[in-house]
Amino acid sequence: MASSSSAGEEARPTRIMIGVNESSIRGYPHPSISSRTAFDWTLQKIVRSNAAGFKLLFLHVQIPDEDGFDDMDSIYASPDDFQSMHQKEKIRGIHLLQYFVEHSHQLGIQCEAWIRKGDPKEVICQEVKKVQPDILVVGSRGLGPFQRVFVGTVSEYLVKHVDCPVVTIKRKADEAPHDPIDD
Amino acid sequence: MASSSSAGEEARPTRIMIGVNESSIRGYPHPSISSRTAFDWTLQKIVRSNAAGFKLLFLHVQIPDEDGFDDMDSIYASPDDFQSMHQKEKIRGIHLLQYFVEHSHQLGIQCEAWIRKGDPKEVICQEVKKVQPDILVVGSRGLGPFQRVFVGTVSEYLVKHVDCPVVTIKRKADEAPHDPIDD
Repeated sequence: MASSSSAGEEARPTRIMIGVNESSIRGYPHPSISSRTAFDWTLQKIVRSNAAGFKLLFLHVQIPDEDGFDDMDSIYASPDDFQSMHQKEKIRGIHLLQYFVEHSHQLGIQCEAWIRKGDPKEVICQEVKKVQPDILVVGSRGLGPFQRVFVGTVSEYLVKHVDCPVVTIKRKADEAPHDPIDD
Repeated sequence: MASSSSAGEEARPTRIMIGVNESSIRGYPHPSISSRTAFDWTLQKIVRSNAAGFKLLFLHVQIPDEDGFDDMDSIYASPDDFQSMHQKEKIRGIHLLQYFVEHSHQLGIQCEAWIRKGDPKEVICQEVKKVQPDILVVGSRGLGPFQRVFVGTVSEYLVKHVDCPVVTIKRKADEAPHDPIDD
């Protein structure tokens, strides 16, 4: 059983990919409750005091149309107006990633963070295939059976389709907002 | 974000429950390929050099009837014969757990191991509720879609029904036996 006795002997850190997104309720660049819970869980239960043993990979997937919601009242008069909208979206995403990169940096944990656009479940699958993390951590709103039919399917899809081990972290009950759809 | 900065400050180790079972192909007390893969993954990717930060909880669920298979040719003439069969089963289970406890001990990782009887998915759910580990690691044979309909459902059931985060570790391709049902 040579493999069992090699714990900790590898030079390469364990690479943990964490899917992160913005809060739907708190306005400008706050991470969602689920993303923050997934991040905190990873730090407290896995990384612990062994900062050198891990590298965190933060992937933020922006959903193209949903992000334009704040611009519903805008008037688009020229192609430049769309350009500025895309710019704003990008900046929001960068601010979100800044939260995670700064916290990791403070704790002395190596990290990388990047943004992709598209359908979260498909994009996460593609990125896992490309980046090959050792483990994927995703947050989940932990909704009831009725709501899960409509919204709680990203983490279930990933568990089935992604090649690496997946951990789904549910939101803590005491952090859930009044409307469980909010996050 | 007080919680994000508390990584590693907790005294209590992260408690990882690992579901383990016997090999279906290798005879006397060998762990299954899936169980060994789940154990090795936990050591190499999570525990690493931080032995003091983790406690491993090995749960072996014995399926009542299946374990009697080796005694198909036996003749039962008195209640004592059944007693001796139960005794044999118990000893096989203890030998299985010995493998995991000895390896953990060699690496200086705290552990506990115990045996329960019943339907693995139901028993694991009950034990998680009672013991409240931080994370549950289970092996999986990683079968194709056709075979999964019949046999690959324990880990999927656990992901849905267990309260703590669940990691499913698939068997490595190079360790798979000719018949993917074997383990």
